[in-house]
Amino acid sequence: MHVSYEQAETAIAAALAESNKLGVQMCIAVVDSGADLKSFVRMNGAWVGSVDIAIKKAKTACFFGMNTGQIGQLSQPGGPLYGIEHSNGGLITFPGGIPIVDTDGILIGAIGVSGSSVENDHQVAKAGVDVIGLTDLPEHPWRT
Amino acid sequence: MHVSYEQAETAIAAALAESNKLGVQMCIAVVDSGADLKSFVRMNGAWVGSVDIAIKKAKTACFFGMNTGQIGQLSQPGGPLYGIEHSNGGLITFPGGIPIVDTDGILIGAIGVSGSSVENDHQVAKAGVDVIGLTDLPEHPWRT
Amino acid sequence: MHVSYEQAETAIAAALAESNKLGVQMCIAVVDSGADLKSFVRMNGAWVGSVDIAIKKAKTACFFGMNTGQIGQLSQPGGPLYGIEHSNGGLITFPGGIPIVDTDGILIGAIGVSGSSVENDHQVAKAGVDVIGLTDLPEHPWRT
Amino acid sequence: MHVSYEQAETAIAAALAESNKLGVQMCIAVVDSGADLKSFVRMNGAWVGSVDIAIKKAKTACFFGMNTGQIGQLSQPGGPLYGIEHSNGGLITFPGGIPIVDTDGILIGAIGVSGSSVENDHQVAKAGVDVIGLTDLPEHPWRT
Repeated sequence: MHVSYEQAETAIAAALAESNKLGVQMCIAVVDSGADLKSFVRMNGAWVGSVDIAIKKAKTACFFGMNTGQIGQLSQPGGPLYGIEHSNGGLITFPGGIPIVDTDGILIGAIGVSGSSVENDHQVAKAGVDVIGLTDLPEHPWRT
Repeated sequence: MHVSYEQAETAIAAALAESNKLGVQMCIAVVDSGADLKSFVRMNGAWVGSVDIAIKKAKTACFFGMNTGQIGQLSQPGGPLYGIEHSNGGLITFPGGIPIVDTDGILIGAIGVSGSSVENDHQVAKAGVDVIGLTDLPEHPWRT
Repeated sequence: MHVSYEQAETAIAAALAESNKLGVQMCIAVVDSGADLKSFVRMNGAWVGSVDIAIKKAKTACFFGMNTGQIGQLSQPGGPLYGIEHSNGGLITFPGGIPIVDTDGILIGAIGVSGSSVENDHQVAKAGVDVIGLTDLPEHPWRT
Repeated sequence: MHVSYEQAETAIAAALAESNKLGVQMCIAVVDSGADLKSFVRMNGAWVGSVDIAIKKAKTACFFGMNTGQIGQLSQPGGPLYGIEHSNGGLITFPGGIPIVDTDGILIGAIGVSGSSVENDHQVAKAGVDVIGLTDLPEHPWRT
């Protein structure tokens, strides 16, 4: 299953509302369960460099079915996944990317947000996911 | 000057309406005058391969301030720009990409559409541009 | 707004003068606010490897509207932006890249310098910016 | 031998003068005999897409010690070098790139110009080479 266009737009609207509440300028990307781009917006004044980071966060979260920040904890020097960022055309492994899992526990896509602190990025991404998916991830969300 | 978020969303809404009228499933990308992605949507059922084509059409139209199909006429075997597609990380030079020029004749961005015949792609892109910019391009739209 | 050719040449001339004063051989790149190359020079004897580093420093400073060294402080192992260098086709996050902000506080481009110590790189970049822009950056320089 | 900074600037000044005489907006790149960028300028109003094309034309002319247009004649469908543009990270094989050969017949670099018709691009590139090198190329200019 893939996130629908309507779900992607719903998630982005919620993420935009959260960004405005925080007073930050974000890039927000939604990918489907194939990690292919579904929807994207760059708010006025957002960093141009965040375009690629938001998309890569969404792809990274989808590739591995986990929050990008969790991968980053494993990819530090000495960690088991050190250097994983070199794969898949470039990963981003700090917070701001979250898988989207439907109520059946199926991975249907992911959202990636970039433009502020990583805490704000994650908070905005979570606001997007909350309106269309689960907030508690199963251990291994399945693609179908 | 760059296309604003509000302009990009207006253009995409018009392009989506045109797509629905035609009964086609499109990827639609808007870039600013630096050829950096501003907004993107992929309709349900659109080809995944069209994601990159729509974005590259928008970038190509912005890079040279002309419709992508015009470049393609010059880049055929034996033509003066044969092989130009190898530049800039890959260009797409068939129809579906159109520059966005404001009422002062300034290039503010571009739109790229992919997902159907090149005639439909161009028609949908034009529907997007029509609501936020000029339809008759000056000979050399200027960036500022 | 984008840095003009005349501004770019003025900045490069000042950066070259500073390089000569320090007795160092530099690569110096100026990009516009879309992070697209505007002017570049490689002094005689400068490292060939510095060509790409100078350009990437300028792009990085433009992408995020901040000095490259500030990003590097956040991208160390264990830091919040660890691995950000994998985005945008490769960033350079040590000193030597500085945004160019005009007197209205608008980001109009960036300069990147590579070829000596990072302290010298930064000093030469700053000499370039000083003649065409602000030296005190606003918190979030805006693109328009 | 490599083109010096002073030679590169002399060539670019002549190319700029020719561009102004023609009333065109060009990107002009000079590479040394290692095909590494030495100097680059983008005139105000020049296409952003020409940045990469000018640099690739200079590199292509240097890589093979011949005018880019000569390679393009060999790379047409059915020709002996069909598809050569896929090598070296992307070549540009239409006119506008010219090797720079010194008075001893040694290849010291190349110039690439993009921004107008290929005839104008070539004319501007030739104006740049004329002030620092030979206009009649030996059959196989040598690198040293």
